[in-house]
Amino acid sequence: MTAIGFDDPGGAEVLRPERLAVPEPGENQVLIRVAYAGINRPDVIQRQGFYPPPPGASPIPGLEVAGTVVAVGKGAPPEMLNRRVCALVSGGGYAEYCLAHSAHCLNLPADMAFDIAAAIPETLFTVWHNVFERGWASDGDTLLVHGGTSGIGTMAIQLAKAFDIAVIATAGSEDKCEAIRGLGADLAINYRTQDFVEEVKAFTGGKGVNVVLDMVSGEYVARNIECLADDGRHVTIAVLGGLKAEINMATVMRKRLSLTGSTLRPRSDEFKALLADEIYNYAWPLFEDGTILPVMDRTFPFAEAGAAHARMEEGAHIGKIVLEVAGD
Amino acid sequence: MTAIGFDDPGGAEVLRPERLAVPEPGENQVLIRVAYAGINRPDVIQRQGFYPPPPGASPIPGLEVAGTVVAVGKGAPPEMLNRRVCALVSGGGYAEYCLAHSAHCLNLPADMAFDIAAAIPETLFTVWHNVFERGWASDGDTLLVHGGTSGIGTMAIQLAKAFDIAVIATAGSEDKCEAIRGLGADLAINYRTQDFVEEVKAFTGGKGVNVVLDMVSGEYVARNIECLADDGRHVTIAVLGGLKAEINMATVMRKRLSLTGSTLRPRSDEFKALLADEIYNYAWPLFEDGTILPVMDRTFPFAEAGAAHARMEEGAHIGKIVLEVAGD
Repeated sequence: MTAIGFDDPGGAEVLRPERLAVPEPGENQVLIRVAYAGINRPDVIQRQGFYPPPPGASPIPGLEVAGTVVAVGKGAPPEMLNRRVCALVSGGGYAEYCLAHSAHCLNLPADMAFDIAAAIPETLFTVWHNVFERGWASDGDTLLVHGGTSGIGTMAIQLAKAFDIAVIATAGSEDKCEAIRGLGADLAINYRTQDFVEEVKAFTGGKGVNVVLDMVSGEYVARNIECLADDGRHVTIAVLGGLKAEINMATVMRKRLSLTGSTLRPRSDEFKALLADEIYNYAWPLFEDGTILPVMDRTFPFAEAGAAHARMEEGAHIGKIVLEVAGD
Repeated sequence: MTAIGFDDPGGAEVLRPERLAVPEPGENQVLIRVAYAGINRPDVIQRQGFYPPPPGASPIPGLEVAGTVVAVGKGAPPEMLNRRVCALVSGGGYAEYCLAHSAHCLNLPADMAFDIAAAIPETLFTVWHNVFERGWASDGDTLLVHGGTSGIGTMAIQLAKAFDIAVIATAGSEDKCEAIRGLGADLAINYRTQDFVEEVKAFTGGKGVNVVLDMVSGEYVARNIECLADDGRHVTIAVLGGLKAEINMATVMRKRLSLTGSTLRPRSDEFKALLADEIYNYAWPLFEDGTILPVMDRTFPFAEAGAAHARMEEGAHIGKIVLEVAGD
């Protein structure tokens, strides 16, 4: 089969096709013939050499795929054969065939196209775990999301709104703010022209937000803390603005804040299966009936994975970038 | 009645007696004739001018008392009259009579002396909420406590051990480390002669601790984070070492840490009543049967409250300092 990998870390141009043996499903695994693969920020960071795959994971990038199950390993449900699924995978998505844990797959409704399906798992699993499980967001809360037009951002806005959470999102242009409002966000803040701390305070009547989903980190953390209401939760899922944050611990005490964060990829198969189960029960019906659809930025041909990465790195995209592997 | 207050913030010498009207119990309150009042670090910080009483609280210091209920307000259980109790109060403890919310009192067993009882509420409520509720400590976990010989430290060591939690505590002298070991701590670290990060790593086989109860903050926070295991919880209850902490948010993500903290005094009456109820059911039996007894440092006469504060500020005390008001 053909897969897209790289020899040495570097710019988007290091991505190149390679020929590999089709992998065989191990215990509890299924083999998916990949129709589309989603592109995610961790793929870019992996290609840059800063996010090596966890032990046992494929060195081929790609954390989510959609396609058809063509082989079922020992212990995986035999009835999954021939099913149309999307899956969260720990690597290897940029390939004609990809292994997935059977419990990390979601069955597709008949009318869901593969490109749409491939754009869902990574952001859905990440947002569900971090906003709802770690951040305890619940109806009546207000959520602040940075990077509102990213894959994560667009997913977070839609999921939060579906669960009666007010959403404030930031982005770097008026066009992006317009897109954010179109997704249902209650307030869009252009961080280039507005001070998000002031805007959040004004919008919430000085009360602040209950949850911040933070993918910037660095000096944003102290400003996010200013945005948080008493008992607020701050959940970090990326550090695009820098690792180090200076935090006033007296404020953490006084407001009874919680700061946490997580990475999804190195979690155990059991954890991901439990997460998939909760998502299947509580969130997936919203995708099955079309209430939530991923925002699609652009589809790139399989051979142009480098161009897909370059588009993400430029930062002009709104929503998800996917790679057409076998196609529909 | 006589109470101990101060006119202007300052050193321990600003504390002086004053004559005040005996307060009358309002709705849900009881009036306690104070036998002993506990001294706590927040009293010292209040006297220094850095921790003003919350709205509605007495300007007289004192957050915990033991004594006899001599009057019962509307809505408070009439059967509380004449009961021997200890209570968490929002201020006013350094006085011959003190008001308490009826649901913030704990009934004393017949054989518990008032000086012992007065030394319990503030540290018990604080440790229970922060170690067990915010820090989710549970059997099999390992807890790191700084200030192991303080009132909070000695309470945290005993409570954690009673619930099958391994305890590592730090202190600043060999005598204090000996006292910590005497309370059941599994490891005592002299922070003046040992690097607590290295000692914690060695003791836990590199795994780290599950919970840190932090009363130092400042530059300790980054070192505490090095001590935490995956999924570890960091709970700040004081900032004696400084407000500002520099935190690596990528480490927070990678280890899936949670950093939180709280202050008890400004919480609602309802919150404190719920906390008292949980404590009464789960922790108080350990005090009733003598499994846990507060470590008593020294008792000062009522008129020598300034000397009691000075002793706390010197930092040589081991355990609780109490003020004899009416005595037994």
